[in-house]
Amino acid sequence: MPDISRKGLQMPASPIRKLVPFAEDAKKKGTHVIHLNIGQPDIKTPKIALDAVRNHNIDVLAYSMTEGSEEYRKKIAAYYSDNKINVTSNDIIVTTGGSEALSFVMGSIMDADDEIIIPEPFYANYNGFATASGVKVVPIVSNIKNNFSLPPIASFEKLITDKTKAILICNPGNPTGYLYSKDEIQQLAALVKKHDLFLVADEVYREFTYDDREHYSILQEEGLEENAIIVDSVSKRYSMCGARIGCLVSKNQEVIQTALKFAQARLSPPTFAQIASEAALETPKEYFDDVIKEYVERRNVLVSELQKIQGVKVAVPQGAFYCVVELPVSNSDNFAQWLLEKFEIDGNTVMVAPAAGFYATKGLGNNQIRIAYVLEKDQLVKAVHILGEALKVYNEG
Amino acid sequence: MPDISRKGLQMPASPIRKLVPFAEDAKKKGTHVIHLNIGQPDIKTPKIALDAVRNHNIDVLAYSMTEGSEEYRKKIAAYYSDNKINVTSNDIIVTTGGSEALSFVMGSIMDADDEIIIPEPFYANYNGFATASGVKVVPIVSNIKNNFSLPPIASFEKLITDKTKAILICNPGNPTGYLYSKDEIQQLAALVKKHDLFLVADEVYREFTYDDREHYSILQEEGLEENAIIVDSVSKRYSMCGARIGCLVSKNQEVIQTALKFAQARLSPPTFAQIASEAALETPKEYFDDVIKEYVERRNVLVSELQKIQGVKVAVPQGAFYCVVELPVSNSDNFAQWLLEKFEIDGNTVMVAPAAGFYATKGLGNNQIRIAYVLEKDQLVKAVHILGEALKVYNEG
Ligand SMILES: Cc1ncc(COP(=O)(O)O)c(C=O)c1O
Ligand SMILES: Cc1ncc(COP(=O)(O)O)c(C=O)c1O
Repeated sequence: MPDISRKGLQMPASPIRKLVPFAEDAKKKGTHVIHLNIGQPDIKTPKIALDAVRNHNIDVLAYSMTEGSEEYRKKIAAYYSDNKINVTSNDIIVTTGGSEALSFVMGSIMDADDEIIIPEPFYANYNGFATASGVKVVPIVSNIKNNFSLPPIASFEKLITDKTKAILICNPGNPTGYLYSKDEIQQLAALVKKHDLFLVADEVYREFTYDDREHYSILQEEGLEENAIIVDSVSKRYSMCGARIGCLVSKNQEVIQTALKFAQARLSPPTFAQIASEAALETPKEYFDDVIKEYVERRNVLVSELQKIQGVKVAVPQGAFYCVVELPVSNSDNFAQWLLEKFEIDGNTVMVAPAAGFYATKGLGNNQIRIAYVLEKDQLVKAVHILGEALKVYNEG
Repeated sequence: MPDISRKGLQMPASPIRKLVPFAEDAKKKGTHVIHLNIGQPDIKTPKIALDAVRNHNIDVLAYSMTEGSEEYRKKIAAYYSDNKINVTSNDIIVTTGGSEALSFVMGSIMDADDEIIIPEPFYANYNGFATASGVKVVPIVSNIKNNFSLPPIASFEKLITDKTKAILICNPGNPTGYLYSKDEIQQLAALVKKHDLFLVADEVYREFTYDDREHYSILQEEGLEENAIIVDSVSKRYSMCGARIGCLVSKNQEVIQTALKFAQARLSPPTFAQIASEAALETPKEYFDDVIKEYVERRNVLVSELQKIQGVKVAVPQGAFYCVVELPVSNSDNFAQWLLEKFEIDGNTVMVAPAAGFYATKGLGNNQIRIAYVLEKDQLVKAVHILGEALKVYNEG
């Protein structure tokens, strides 16, 4: 039998998936599983986007332009301009989800064995894209004690080698919910300019900022044009994860022209999804006001309920819809599995994402979990109640 | 300014794209350009597929399953079974086009510097996926003299090194139109088993075989289960290139489980496109009968018109909808550009794909072009007429 690639063996399985078989077993036994583990919003997709697809008048479903249609890219540029980000359609490549934008970025700016510094905990699939590209993730730890704010610039500098090509941040963060301040972005900007690195910002949660905090994009930062690359997506913004549309944005034309070659190889992004995404840009502002209000309420309920549990520490999220929680357990992997296998209250249990999968440094995050607050408030209250009771039993047992 | 990756610099731009600016200039001057250069069929997408999307009842456009929905994969397995290919839903991963399946295959079975042997001329984007994966394409030349049939097995054996991981064929071929015989597939099967290699077959044109020739899939070959990997796509089959749905098929569960990890990183294939593709499986047989009849007529017209031109040699295609043509010119790149820049008859000119881009060996294919017969017969006649007249002028000039 021929051999699989070493790269294939090294590819990380999704950390959230490990527990799926246990969740399935629980469901087979008739237990209702409340899912706190996945970032799939329950929010309705804007009707205007869904209707645009219903009303399509396509005869021949042809390849679209590799970089996305000119019209759609112009509208995306206008969206950015509304968000104080000054770009043109030429600075944008439409991709198959933010995921594909991440692949293109890694391929365009990094070679095998090059290094990319990423504050941890981070979106676990960065590992997958890095492994697929043969590049090395160099983690820099951020701490729950200060809400996962930016690690000191001096600790970044210690990690920079001649293999370092880029720093990647997620803003606001998955799984941290942390929103970088303008000052933090400026510190990073100075750092990457000093060392001639790229600064890649995954801004797929840009819209989701709370408590009147404003998102400061790396592309708002003057003088950073040649270094800055944004990864973006319609998935969470319009609750249309199944569309698979995102984009890569940079004022650096060498980056765009290089990424375009990767894009050409795969021909084009999906057409129906582009129709939906273009229409989604017309979503009325009230939609977002309502969604943000809902997420803030959910966050508030979640955090206040969690804080009632003894020994639990919460990093209060300022954006996105995730929250990292420290639990009084030594191994949240085992605890999460135990919840699914052994615990229930009135036929209900909860599924959480153990946080170790969001750290690249072995041993970190073992007492943490990530909760996605993409469920209604009563569900969140119920879930946290179960979690609290479960911890009592688990720590007695 | 930070550096682009070496990989990014090496990424080939699509060979078909090089001429696009000249085509645009021609159009600006008011010349009508007949496109023989792209494999975008003009055939109507089955109504059943387009209607399924029109009638969607989605509220929340959520991520689908990473590997594609169970229901859709079951139906794909039934489609294969109708085509004498015996697989189950577990042997299938739904991908974003055949393109993504090619990426997953390269990642799953090859590491940096590993080698994959591909008969040339071949689909140019294999180069792009190989470069993106950091692996090396080792070409083995097939010849227009014998219609681009399989090179002798002995010449394959000469190229096999300890870096060789796989042989990739395209069957029927783009750009060759060649359909491998059962005997040729069996020779390849014996070869890959002897050397413990993978045999990857890009069968996206499976449906398009002519003159009562039958397609013999590598997955029909008994005993090849652990070595065989199929790349497939709905793009050409149902003229729905813009959907971006394909699949990777293998009975080798290690390949499937590895490719699944690459798939997990990018979350899921596009939902609307899966709806269309699932419905497309219900396309009535008459649709294909009509389409095949149309392509055969086009091919016949194209080939007989081309054969009237002095000094032109045509490899008569038995499948797909491409045809490689040898011209009495020394550099078809220059000729193709000249056609767009300098030549027209009654306001019309043609755009062809110079064939050098389909060869990995430098210097090969310089006197060849690829023609895609995805246009109506009268357009093809007109285009070949222009080509013939152009050759006279070009060779006099
Ligand atoms: C931080 C972050 N980046 C990127 C993605 C990729 O999303 P998509 O490919 O759906 O745009 C996700 C999805 O959860 C995410 O959380
Ligand atoms: C031989 C071959 N393989 C794969 C593809 C990729 O097609 P898609 O990604 O649309 O399935 C094409 C498209 O032209 C092709 O010709």
